[in-house]
Amino acid sequence: MIPLGAKADKATVRRHNLSLVLRTVHGTGEVTRAGIAARVGLTRAAVSSLVEQLLGYGFITEWGKTSSGQAGRPGTVLKVARTGPAGVGVEINVGHIAVCVVDLAGTDRVRLVEDFDSRGMQPSRVLARAARLTARALDSAAGQGLEPVGAHVAVPGLVTGGTVRQAPNLGWNRVAVEGVFAQALLALRPLRALPVSSDNEANAAALAELWYGAGTEGARSFLYLSGEVGIGGALVLKGELLRGAHGFAGEIGHMVVDPDGRPCRCGARGCLEQYAGQAALLSTAGLGADAGAPGVAELRRRARERDPSALAAMERAGRQLGVAVSGAVNLFDPDVVMLGGVYRELSEWLAPAVGRELARRVVSGLWDRDRSRLRPASPLSDAARGSAGVVVREVLADPAAYGERGGSGPRRTASTAGR
Amino acid sequence: MIPLGAKADKATVRRHNLSLVLRTVHGTGEVTRAGIAARVGLTRAAVSSLVEQLLGYGFITEWGKTSSGQAGRPGTVLKVARTGPAGVGVEINVGHIAVCVVDLAGTDRVRLVEDFDSRGMQPSRVLARAARLTARALDSAAGQGLEPVGAHVAVPGLVTGGTVRQAPNLGWNRVAVEGVFAQALLALRPLRALPVSSDNEANAAALAELWYGAGTEGARSFLYLSGEVGIGGALVLKGELLRGAHGFAGEIGHMVVDPDGRPCRCGARGCLEQYAGQAALLSTAGLGADAGAPGVAELRRRARERDPSALAAMERAGRQLGVAVSGAVNLFDPDVVMLGGVYRELSEWLAPAVGRELARRVVSGLWDRDRSRLRPASPLSDAARGSAGVVVREVLADPAAYGERGGSGPRRTASTAGR
Repeated sequence: MIPLGAKADKATVRRHNLSLVLRTVHGTGEVTRAGIAARVGLTRAAVSSLVEQLLGYGFITEWGKTSSGQAGRPGTVLKVARTGPAGVGVEINVGHIAVCVVDLAGTDRVRLVEDFDSRGMQPSRVLARAARLTARALDSAAGQGLEPVGAHVAVPGLVTGGTVRQAPNLGWNRVAVEGVFAQALLALRPLRALPVSSDNEANAAALAELWYGAGTEGARSFLYLSGEVGIGGALVLKGELLRGAHGFAGEIGHMVVDPDGRPCRCGARGCLEQYAGQAALLSTAGLGADAGAPGVAELRRRARERDPSALAAMERAGRQLGVAVSGAVNLFDPDVVMLGGVYRELSEWLAPAVGRELARRVVSGLWDRDRSRLRPASPLSDAARGSAGVVVREVLADPAAYGERGGSGPRRTASTAGR
Repeated sequence: MIPLGAKADKATVRRHNLSLVLRTVHGTGEVTRAGIAARVGLTRAAVSSLVEQLLGYGFITEWGKTSSGQAGRPGTVLKVARTGPAGVGVEINVGHIAVCVVDLAGTDRVRLVEDFDSRGMQPSRVLARAARLTARALDSAAGQGLEPVGAHVAVPGLVTGGTVRQAPNLGWNRVAVEGVFAQALLALRPLRALPVSSDNEANAAALAELWYGAGTEGARSFLYLSGEVGIGGALVLKGELLRGAHGFAGEIGHMVVDPDGRPCRCGARGCLEQYAGQAALLSTAGLGADAGAPGVAELRRRARERDPSALAAMERAGRQLGVAVSGAVNLFDPDVVMLGGVYRELSEWLAPAVGRELARRVVSGLWDRDRSRLRPASPLSDAARGSAGVVVREVLADPAAYGERGGSGPRRTASTAGR
């Protein structure tokens, strides 16, 4: 986008239009040159010149002729290439690490997940393990003709300027996540530095939902809840992730449910996390606060069998969640609330109580009847995929910056992308 | 701004650049053609042509030569005109109506305020009274050579699509505020229809703070609290007001402080408004819930004399306010929290308790020591001024739309601007 304070000159306009054409091919799935011209309002000659440039980069490919069923004379169909630039997403969570490689079209081409409990482990050891998994994913991507241009790491904590400022549930404090991860990866793949960026886990999951989610038809403004050991949150408004003034927005787990209540890892009292987080939920259900993913599976099983203490635990957590989420909805006015992480798996039992509080407490009255506003998140739209998507979006936003190297890799060669 | 999905053609670019030049004159206060060219990166010839157009509209004026003290050879100084297009802001609140006329430079040129209690009164009667006050303000503006191009009405409630959906403290439900006000004004000034738009009162006050506030040096991201009979709120992020998906964002008065607590006018229980709103505050201090503005003045007087029950009431309300505001800060991550409305007048006594909760509960740790993040709002940056500013900003954003009529009035001639 040409910023409000900048003049619009010829080179800027061409670069802008190059991105516009690539995003049109991406957005439509398949389209002819004439179809692009009609959509974006540029002349066919201008579109043809921009298409040639993108074909030269290898970012789009020609794919046969349109059938006679379509309007106008048949044209060559263009699609986003299945080879070439790709994004790598890395999710580091308390119970697992996931790595995902997504191509320019947004397709999940590689997905590797390792379950392991990283609590109490040195951050550098956790990141070295993530780097090993990433190196395997990169080999697999190379075998498919993909050329990753960057990696984006998601961590459940406050992340800014390449640093995890605080991730209470991992036990991390001031960890230079981008630098440490980039070094670990470089040690495994000498001379092949990959730019690394980073973000909060719930933010990345919300972006996955926005870009690739099945449940987001028409939902461009939503509150995303990531139920894990902690509770992450992210706010998307009109298709844009809200980061706040310092990048710390979305910390719904620390909204107050009981001002003088249970102590929280953050140092305060009465935070939502202590009433509706995974540990609180499992403990109320009599399964042990540290029962982890197997505990959640057991809770589901019991709830399906209508075990009273499992149902009561969900009702209680759902109500507390609903009180906090109602406050967030009054404040932020989203169109939809997405239940992600373990909340997705448990949404059948949590959603009724959450919905009741929303109906009762949201002043706009928009949540009274319309229960479709409260939805489980999409299964494959996780933080790893969203992170990979962040890298892919950078290419779509400015193809010239990546294409001028002839598709041989990212233009930036520093080990970290920085901020 | 040229939207991401649009081609950038010549006419669009000129219109964009015309606004850019006008905003540069507006933003700098006074500047030469050469100064504009240097700032925006356009050629001197292009700037001169755009300046001629704006001079023709009467939106800017030439104002002598630069002194030899400035760099380069002396040039003609340009300023935004003190005559011509202006905005009218109308604030309708529970205890008063205010009307303000602001010129293109952002100066408050007319300000009329009437104290009166509109509770229980028919909305059409209240709006007729506001129209009378507005007609007087328009006469005064005309006498100063100003030509208002629109009026913007602010109401403490949920406002969308020209309608007040709900304003519990005024007792309004589904009031077509733009239409009713425009008709009332037209009846007083036949054949001189003025486009009318509308918004929530806290939103308008927050915009006044953003555009004209003294306390906003560097604060482009803030949470604005408007303490009145109810509690309004508005979120500004990086200079943009967040409206939410349906225009209902910022309803901090209905965040929950005690899930099973006091009943609220909204129909739910335990809303912040019932613990820290003006009525709750006055009632806790033993002054009577309906004591209004004189009650607030009395509370101030007693607090200054260190009356224990006045101080205890402030401490209690401040603590509840702090709990809710901490949740909002965790969720939204603003740079600053502004105490507006009666909270501004009482900030000396409320701020310590609010600040304590923020220090204790905000997970980023940014609120631990830095007490300057919690500030009283600026005295003259109220909802009426912000509303007038909304109209002025429309002219700055697209001067051609207003100038093509030769300064004789707004291009749109319908009685309401619509949405």
